[in-house]
Amino acid sequence: MKTSLGPQSILYPTPTLVICTYDPEDRPNMMTAAWAGVCCSSPPMVSVSLRPATYSHANIKLHKAFTVCVPSQDHWREADHVGIVSGRNTLKFQTTGLTVKRSELVEAPYIEEFPMILECKVHEVHELGLHTQFVGEVVNVMVDEDVLDENDNVDIERLRPIIFSPGAGVYHGVGELLGKARTNRNLEKGGDEEEE
Amino acid sequence: MKTSLGPQSILYPTPTLVICTYDPEDRPNMMTAAWAGVCCSSPPMVSVSLRPATYSHANIKLHKAFTVCVPSQDHWREADHVGIVSGRNTLKFQTTGLTVKRSELVEAPYIEEFPMILECKVHEVHELGLHTQFVGEVVNVMVDEDVLDENDNVDIERLRPIIFSPGAGVYHGVGELLGKARTNRNLEKGGDEEEE
Repeated sequence: MKTSLGPQSILYPTPTLVICTYDPEDRPNMMTAAWAGVCCSSPPMVSVSLRPATYSHANIKLHKAFTVCVPSQDHWREADHVGIVSGRNTLKFQTTGLTVKRSELVEAPYIEEFPMILECKVHEVHELGLHTQFVGEVVNVMVDEDVLDENDNVDIERLRPIIFSPGAGVYHGVGELLGKARTNRNLEKGGDEEEE
Repeated sequence: MKTSLGPQSILYPTPTLVICTYDPEDRPNMMTAAWAGVCCSSPPMVSVSLRPATYSHANIKLHKAFTVCVPSQDHWREADHVGIVSGRNTLKFQTTGLTVKRSELVEAPYIEEFPMILECKVHEVHELGLHTQFVGEVVNVMVDEDVLDENDNVDIERLRPIIFSPGAGVYHGVGELLGKARTNRNLEKGGDEEEE
C-alpha cells in the first residue's frame, strides 16, 4: 500500500558533489551540490542546479565554466562544510585545508585531494524556479590512477563516492556489488548472459 | 597524480531508475534510465535524459508525462532487463511479471512493486545531442509506508535503491552511514553541531 507525500524534490540515490568556480577576483570557491547528474552521452554533458542566491551561481555565469569534483568518503565532512558556509565571507579552501589547482581547459579551479574531476564548459542555462540548471559540456575527466580498474574504467569501490539522502539529510557510502549491467535480457533464464 | 580520460559522460553515484509511460495504444511501457536527477526544489522537478531512438521518448512527447519508479535492490535484474529490450516489440510488464497501475494524477503508469514513485508532468524539453533531457515537475511522490522513518522521511536503508556505475557497468547497493548533513560548519571542532 502506497502513501502520498505530495510534491517533493527527492530521489535516491542522489550524488554528493562539490562544484568549483572562480569569483570575480579570481579567488577559488567551492560548494556542495546534490541536484546533479549526467544528462547527455554525446557530447558528454552533466547538469548541476544551483540557487541564484549562491556565490557560485554568479561565478558560473561570469566564467561560463565550473568543475564537478567528486569527493571520496574520506572527505564527507569537508563536502558537507562547503554546503553550509558561503564563499562571500569564507575562503573555503582555507577552512577545509584542501588544495586548489587551476584547470588547464576551463576557467575554473578543482580540488586536488578529490579522486575525480569533471571539467565543464556551460552549454545551456535553464531558469526552472528556485534553482537554475546549468548544463555543462564535459571537456575532460581527470581521475586518480588508483581508482581505475584493469580496463581503465572507474571502479566505484575504489572511488568510494558519497550518497546523499534528501529529506533525512544523511550521507552514506557505496554498498555491496549486486551484479553486472546488461546481463538480464532473458529473466526466465536467470540472467548472466552478457549482451554483445 | 591525476590522469586524463578525455571527455566522458560518467559520474558517481548515478541512480538506477525505471521510467514508465503509455504508448499511443495506451499500453504501459518501462525503461531503465540513469541520466537523471533532481533539478529544482521549488517547484519540485527532476530531469531524465533519453535517446530519441527509444520507444519511451515518443511516449513522453505524446502524453507529456512519465513516472520515475525507484527500484529496490530486490528488483535489480528487472531494472536491468527493461533497459535492454525495447517496448516496440516486448511487453515488459509481461516479461518482468511486474504489476502496472495507472497514475491518478498524470497520464502514465507506475510499477506497484517498486517502493517509490515520482509522478511527473513535462515542464521543459531540451535537445542536447544524443540525449533529450525531459524536465518533469513532480506533482506527487508515492512511497511504501515501510520505507519511511519516524519523521516520515524516506529512510534510504529501508528503500535500498540501486547505484549504477557508468563505464564499468555494474550495480551496487547502499553502504554504511557516514554522518548527518549540515553538522560541519566548523571543521576544527570536529563537526557534530547541527545547523538551525
